[in-house]
Amino acid sequence: MFAPVYFDHNATTPLAADVLEAMLPFLREQFGNASSRHEYGRAARKAIDEARQQVAAATGAHPTEVIFTSGGSEANNLFLKGAAACLKLGLLAVSAIEHPCVLEPARALVAQGWRLRQIAVDGAGRIDTVDYIEVMAAKPSIVSVMLANNETGVLQDIPALAGQARLGNGGWFHTDAVQALGKLKLDFRALNAAGVHAMTVSAHKIYGPKGAAALVLDKRVELRPLISGGGHERGLRSGTENVAAIVGFGRACELAVARMEQDAAHLAALRIDLEQGLTQLGATIFSKDAERLPNTVYFTLPELDGETLVGKLDRAGFAVASGAACSSVSPEPSHVLRAMGVPLELARCAVRVSFGCGNNAQQVADFLAALGEIAFKLRRMLAMAS
Amino acid sequence: MFAPVYFDHNATTPLAADVLEAMLPFLREQFGNASSRHEYGRAARKAIDEARQQVAAATGAHPTEVIFTSGGSEANNLFLKGAAACLKLGLLAVSAIEHPCVLEPARALVAQGWRLRQIAVDGAGRIDTVDYIEVMAAKPSIVSVMLANNETGVLQDIPALAGQARLGNGGWFHTDAVQALGKLKLDFRALNAAGVHAMTVSAHKIYGPKGAAALVLDKRVELRPLISGGGHERGLRSGTENVAAIVGFGRACELAVARMEQDAAHLAALRIDLEQGLTQLGATIFSKDAERLPNTVYFTLPELDGETLVGKLDRAGFAVASGAACSSVSPEPSHVLRAMGVPLELARCAVRVSFGCGNNAQQVADFLAALGEIAFKLRRMLAMAS
Repeated sequence: MFAPVYFDHNATTPLAADVLEAMLPFLREQFGNASSRHEYGRAARKAIDEARQQVAAATGAHPTEVIFTSGGSEANNLFLKGAAACLKLGLLAVSAIEHPCVLEPARALVAQGWRLRQIAVDGAGRIDTVDYIEVMAAKPSIVSVMLANNETGVLQDIPALAGQARLGNGGWFHTDAVQALGKLKLDFRALNAAGVHAMTVSAHKIYGPKGAAALVLDKRVELRPLISGGGHERGLRSGTENVAAIVGFGRACELAVARMEQDAAHLAALRIDLEQGLTQLGATIFSKDAERLPNTVYFTLPELDGETLVGKLDRAGFAVASGAACSSVSPEPSHVLRAMGVPLELARCAVRVSFGCGNNAQQVADFLAALGEIAFKLRRMLAMAS
Repeated sequence: MFAPVYFDHNATTPLAADVLEAMLPFLREQFGNASSRHEYGRAARKAIDEARQQVAAATGAHPTEVIFTSGGSEANNLFLKGAAACLKLGLLAVSAIEHPCVLEPARALVAQGWRLRQIAVDGAGRIDTVDYIEVMAAKPSIVSVMLANNETGVLQDIPALAGQARLGNGGWFHTDAVQALGKLKLDFRALNAAGVHAMTVSAHKIYGPKGAAALVLDKRVELRPLISGGGHERGLRSGTENVAAIVGFGRACELAVARMEQDAAHLAALRIDLEQGLTQLGATIFSKDAERLPNTVYFTLPELDGETLVGKLDRAGFAVASGAACSSVSPEPSHVLRAMGVPLELARCAVRVSFGCGNNAQQVADFLAALGEIAFKLRRMLAMAS
């Protein structure tokens, strides 16, 4: 079987064999509905309780602060729409580089009467401090700033930003930590003390299954559920629990924490190799000098279209992304790069490599060789055409 | 290992071995994000497309009418809240015996200014025709009546009800068919022609996985998404698709259709055995003479508390339900039985058996023997205590 080299871990990760093993009993004999009051039901409930503890341990939260959802998009929507429904109409502030599942709910709230300010970022993709302070002077009731960006990998200083937040009466600060979990130590207790009230994390970015995520939530935050019904998840998210996926999420959290330091060193070494090679090929690396996730390299080979490169790399056996894999509609130039002031022509050239723990130095060397050859041929064609 | 006899298939079903087999590649090497534009992504997208066709074929819908969600609760919430958000405030009519994931969104809409009428049922749990016509005279904009009830198994004549519906300007008729799929032939094309605009179906009730369901939707229906973001599922449900669960749903649909006639005959035979035995034990069977799902028997042994019986049957090795397994909060007497006019004392005694294709006549005989013994002992204790 043809198995291309996978360099797209910010889009999704392979399920760890240990995680699948933890899930399988719940896809076989332990199939109960966790709300059932018999042996099958109790076994499912117990498994969910354990997973909740594992997720809480990996995020520095209390188990009762973990609200399971079907994914990061749902968790972000639940926070934004759910909190807004319980607050008076006011100002909503989100960074300009948020994932679409934060930006779109924010826009939906505008249609309901909320005002929206997008917080600017600088050329490296970091929150613009001057703009942030200006936005805070207007006392937003809801603030959402992501911990690590899915495209550039850039980290924001969330404790500092939460500390500087000037929230309107009864307002809340949220961070989307989907890309941070498993790559950085997350401590909701410390974040909460710094003024963060809610945090989104997801399983399928950390070698866990698709179909499980969590909103970690300060219990003072009042939310109106998106999905109401049987009253699961403290009434904040009804629906039969996806037991196997939740169990997988718990196990993936456990593994991620155990492996984090070792992984980070390994990923950082690959990143150094790749960035050196890319620089030799004439690439521009976005957010090069910003504090970033250890696994993410976002670059352009100027004049060479990102989509074209991704297609040719795919055929050469390398799975990379041209920006984010989060939109199923037609590829627009990255809103993240546009917010960073990157010209449209350059934004169209963006390619993202995101490493995972299964990648190695040989794969990086092979990738650089393939990319060099593709770029050489494309440039020759461009030269002949001009 | 202790494996109790499972008689609770309306709560959830074991995953069919064939379904798990279809899912496993997507929990192993085919782990891509369906939005990614490389080999892994395309494989995931192709698998989702195939599953969409399988679900469409099993429900008599066109694949483009199938909106995947994380579960039936989400699909019901998406329809009710999503449609309401696109309509002028008006009247909402749902039957009094709907699942909580229809009743609770309906109540949430009342808080937003909608008026709510609960359509009455008769003593057998069928829609009360007089009340239905009276509600329709008030021209509701949204009507939701379930096809098969999860507790009693009673079927409603949805084509007739849709035909009699008098919808307010631009209104829609929805049916929750979660308990019907796999047990009855569903034909959305015919239902749609009769005036049904949306239908909910779910995987984990038909030997498919938890974490996948669908809202089958007439394309004229305008919905505001609950979960917005990357624009998946025609913009109606954003979020990375749970590929394995969707694939499992597709395969489960295929198997359900292939097996339906054979299963229905088998289940009906078990039901006859059980009901004969229960009658000999002095049981009252709810909705006995109504058209019902072939697998569901809802009964009481008068004076014997349902929770107590379920607990004792559990210890004797039989997994049954005391009403619905859909509420994770404290057990209230069934709202379905209350709507049918069943006295509180009798409603508290309700026990539900819901068979699946893996059950057999010996299990039914063993169950009747165990129940007879438990009832005898409980009645003796009651007699001694009084």
